[in-house]
Amino acid sequence: MAYDTRNVFAKILRGDATAHVVYEDDHSVAFMDIMPQVEGHTLVVPRAAAEDLFDIQPDSLAHLIRATQYVARGVKKAFDAHGVMIAQLSGAAAGQTVFHLHFHILPRNHGIEFKLHAREPADAALLAAHAARVRAALT
Amino acid sequence: MAYDTRNVFAKILRGDATAHVVYEDDHSVAFMDIMPQVEGHTLVVPRAAAEDLFDIQPDSLAHLIRATQYVARGVKKAFDAHGVMIAQLSGAAAGQTVFHLHFHILPRNHGIEFKLHAREPADAALLAAHAARVRAALT
Repeated sequence: MAYDTRNVFAKILRGDATAHVVYEDDHSVAFMDIMPQVEGHTLVVPRAAAEDLFDIQPDSLAHLIRATQYVARGVKKAFDAHGVMIAQLSGAAAGQTVFHLHFHILPRNHGIEFKLHAREPADAALLAAHAARVRAALT
Repeated sequence: MAYDTRNVFAKILRGDATAHVVYEDDHSVAFMDIMPQVEGHTLVVPRAAAEDLFDIQPDSLAHLIRATQYVARGVKKAFDAHGVMIAQLSGAAAGQTVFHLHFHILPRNHGIEFKLHAREPADAALLAAHAARVRAALT
């Protein structure tokens, strides 16, 4: 499988598509998932073109997990979450739908299930507000 | 929350409990989950005492994700998996049950659901055989 540059995360990284960005550095970019499985669902992607976990250099992966930890701290704070789930799906059989490597950050609270299957787009204004909360929590 | 050294992964790291180890290095150890959600379910833990994602130094986390990527490649090969899910649960609200940081490696195949809730211990001989398959795949 060759990396397909037409995927939406590649477009976001090129500036050809918009996203509610909460963090970026030389190696990684984090933004709100537009089809959140739970409020505050955030994604962290490498700038490097990598399809999945098996397609990225270990050094780039190390940068990515550092960014994920950093952003997850902000997401947890912004959404007063009791816990956080990190998920990385490699391959369609694992549930991957966008073929640019990404870590999911899912705030979790006691008694609130997340939607594993039912995914629907969230309101853009709501996502913008959520992104602002995460950015504020990170500063 | 202070790290509790009585957790079972701390016991495994100290040699006070056994595990079906598939990989180890100076920073990380990987072994079969004894209550697998799917065949081949493997865990990767840091040697450092860290309760969750928010309790580990970024450098140690970087080592851990490198080991996770390495072991995931072996797990995918050993179980002929179409895909792999990586999960990290921080906090009881996220489903964490052992309070030593760990990454789950879950081989995924088309049409096979994994058990998100129903967890039951697997046969030790079966786990030993699975561990041998992963070790063989890594060499």
